[in-house]
Amino acid sequence: MNGAFLACDWGTTNLRAWVIGEDGSVGPERGFDLGVSKLRPGEAAARFRDEVRPAMNAHSLPALMAGMIGSTLGWTVVPYEDCPVGIDDLSRRLFRVDEPGPPVRIVPGVKGRGLAGAPDVMRGEETQVFGWLAADPERARGRKVVCHPGTHAKWILIEDGRIVRFVTAMTGELFSLLSRHSVLRTDGAGHDEAAFLKGLEAAEDGGALSARLFTVRARVVAGNAPAASSAGYLSGLLIGSDAAALPGLLGISTETAVELVGEPELCRLYDKALTRLGYRTAVHDGDEAVLAGLKALWRAGGGA
Amino acid sequence: MNGAFLACDWGTTNLRAWVIGEDGSVGPERGFDLGVSKLRPGEAAARFRDEVRPAMNAHSLPALMAGMIGSTLGWTVVPYEDCPVGIDDLSRRLFRVDEPGPPVRIVPGVKGRGLAGAPDVMRGEETQVFGWLAADPERARGRKVVCHPGTHAKWILIEDGRIVRFVTAMTGELFSLLSRHSVLRTDGAGHDEAAFLKGLEAAEDGGALSARLFTVRARVVAGNAPAASSAGYLSGLLIGSDAAALPGLLGISTETAVELVGEPELCRLYDKALTRLGYRTAVHDGDEAVLAGLKALWRAGGGA
Repeated sequence: MNGAFLACDWGTTNLRAWVIGEDGSVGPERGFDLGVSKLRPGEAAARFRDEVRPAMNAHSLPALMAGMIGSTLGWTVVPYEDCPVGIDDLSRRLFRVDEPGPPVRIVPGVKGRGLAGAPDVMRGEETQVFGWLAADPERARGRKVVCHPGTHAKWILIEDGRIVRFVTAMTGELFSLLSRHSVLRTDGAGHDEAAFLKGLEAAEDGGALSARLFTVRARVVAGNAPAASSAGYLSGLLIGSDAAALPGLLGISTETAVELVGEPELCRLYDKALTRLGYRTAVHDGDEAVLAGLKALWRAGGGA
Repeated sequence: MNGAFLACDWGTTNLRAWVIGEDGSVGPERGFDLGVSKLRPGEAAARFRDEVRPAMNAHSLPALMAGMIGSTLGWTVVPYEDCPVGIDDLSRRLFRVDEPGPPVRIVPGVKGRGLAGAPDVMRGEETQVFGWLAADPERARGRKVVCHPGTHAKWILIEDGRIVRFVTAMTGELFSLLSRHSVLRTDGAGHDEAAFLKGLEAAEDGGALSARLFTVRARVVAGNAPAASSAGYLSGLLIGSDAAALPGLLGISTETAVELVGEPELCRLYDKALTRLGYRTAVHDGDEAVLAGLKALWRAGGGA
């Protein structure tokens, strides 16, 4: 009814695309090494026209894109929508880029009241949220919390299907910085599950992180733990610290289940941290949620 | 009575030395670009003999050294003394290195029970603590807290003149990492005092640091603050977070004054953070404290 379209999840590190048929059928996924962090200024339109459209055999299809492609690094800067934001609000504001040929639209990011009087922002996670919501009408009732783990993890409060507030935590970036550049360097050691669980325990109430982080080194220097266990322990400290503190910042307690939407292994780690603290959780695949979100927004927007 | 000696504060980044006369008089300070992080393995003895002794005109004096020179990066590894440690304990355990000529001794570091079952360690700060204590006999009575701010800040609990417990916080290293390598990059901007005070406020209870850190970026992206204010704000968040959480980890309340011993400008920032939370504080120069500590340990140890 709404017509076929080309769905794109165009983020910082890569671009994934699918042709969605008129009947909602999903064609094969294609990945492109065209993350916005790798684009030269102003070249997004040409790379899309010359590489993505031909590879997808989608020369004449309208397109809908979500993610950092709407940021200063991307195609064009798409203004944020202010919280509270529901799928109907967002689908009315799909941003049409100034480009000849079939229409290309970008999903706006969302802006909310963050910590310390500063606003907080997301681009891409809103599409995952609406994808997660679209999968079950029950999810649009009452108060829900979605946690999207990652470099800049998002903890998102949803009321009656609308994003009302969220907080970003730079958990993944802290892990990467500390394990590569600090005295806690983990020298590429892999994940150690037992050490991860110890780190969760040691995170306690989420306070005094600068001191708790130093224990990553102290436990090795003192011979209590092998250096190869540091990456797992550090990960446990950081994720445990978030699990202890972030729900409180959003004003939620263990009464509210936490819906983990993202990369499955990362979701598993957050799941461990949260269930340990008494939260009910459920894990949902983030890639599936983006695609479902693009389809739901397209439908809600009435197509091209 | 105890004889003259060569006092050395030999740390990670540099070496400072003084000739102390038989009467306790202090000769001029000399700095050497011989921090242990710049030494090749095994060369400390030769550099000391060939560069430091001649420059100080101290060929025949015994020497006493404090700091990282007693670590794996230094001259030789000096075992830690376990808490509780008083000046008498430490002065009996000054470590004599295996070196011909006038005796060279290194002050042992101190090991204590840290967080999460891991030990915590210091090398050099113990000498500052005993220098601070030596300046006033009143200080050796009852419960005191010394905070030594820096790359790896030490919060030290002292009872009746003995170090009983301490916690290390990697506050300075976090500041350096985040302001150079992260999305919060401050591009070399200087200290902005108003932003620093805002950061102290935003640190609140010291929890959820990974989320509060992201506000450094959010306040700039949203146009609420100039990018040049980020370094001051980040510094306020990190120091405010420590001030809110660290005293509690040592089991102290605002009843106990916090004695700041270290680099004067850094002490001033911690002073702001702590007085804002209701602590009484006093600031003491760290360089003077090291020298006073070396003199006090030499006296207590009965000299060479």
